[in-house]
Amino acid sequence: MAETIMNSVQSSQKNTKETLVFGCDHGGFAYKEFLKKFAETKGYTIIDCGTHSPDSVDYPDYIECVVRSVLAGSVGVLICGSGVGMSIGANRFKGIRAALCMNSQMAKVAREHNNANILVLGERLMSTDEAASCLNAFLNTPFVGDRHQRRIEKLDTFPSC
Amino acid sequence: MAETIMNSVQSSQKNTKETLVFGCDHGGFAYKEFLKKFAETKGYTIIDCGTHSPDSVDYPDYIECVVRSVLAGSVGVLICGSGVGMSIGANRFKGIRAALCMNSQMAKVAREHNNANILVLGERLMSTDEAASCLNAFLNTPFVGDRHQRRIEKLDTFPSC
Repeated sequence: MAETIMNSVQSSQKNTKETLVFGCDHGGFAYKEFLKKFAETKGYTIIDCGTHSPDSVDYPDYIECVVRSVLAGSVGVLICGSGVGMSIGANRFKGIRAALCMNSQMAKVAREHNNANILVLGERLMSTDEAASCLNAFLNTPFVGDRHQRRIEKLDTFPSC
Repeated sequence: MAETIMNSVQSSQKNTKETLVFGCDHGGFAYKEFLKKFAETKGYTIIDCGTHSPDSVDYPDYIECVVRSVLAGSVGVLICGSGVGMSIGANRFKGIRAALCMNSQMAKVAREHNNANILVLGERLMSTDEAASCLNAFLNTPFVGDRHQRRIEKLDTFPSC
């Protein structure tokens, strides 16, 4: 499994939009399965860090696999019940910009202004159509740079990073 | 100014619900002023880490002041245009659980399940009534503990922390 992930990660470095890496807990399992299929139909390569069933698990256990793949060039998607736990945990890591989004407008701004590299969703707070709309906006909106580049660089200068 | 903040932080350690510490960029300035007044009418002591005008600033510059106060016992509120930048930056710090909330349901879950200690809001994405409703839910919902305690402890075990 680990070798498969690393091979996928290495190939994704050619184009950061070619590989999507998914992670979730039980509260996000159904939407992970749904969004994986949605992304596959659009031609993306998929890495699945789990969880692989709706059985209760701890969301922090599924974050680091996604983070490592994103830091190597993939685009990340993390899903739990509300998205809050996943967004806290992923943003612990230097270089990660995980954006909890409730609609496509937020996903668009998270790409434009924050150059977000992980989309975080709350399965219990949105429909599958809204989740797909968020992912679509996230994957198709470029970062605008300029003053926003200076701001995201400051995020990794905090003493704890 | 720094001395005033430290005095307020020290006095807040007696009761973690007595002091609210606010931070924002220009995109969150109007709601910071609104929510400060809202909280004052409810008897909370206020610390204001700025910004103090609607002039353009960099949101990361207002995070650490809030974080230090929260780690000393205050409850934090961070506001920018979308909330995404503030939530990324605040969660860089071990011990911080910053929750970007779009409605009172999210704020309630962020307290119940994540024991969130900073409420993050996006001024451009909600009304003042919704913002006040989020703050009210955040301040009045206890953490449920149990399995959620185990999960939040895992958030601070990541290698980067």
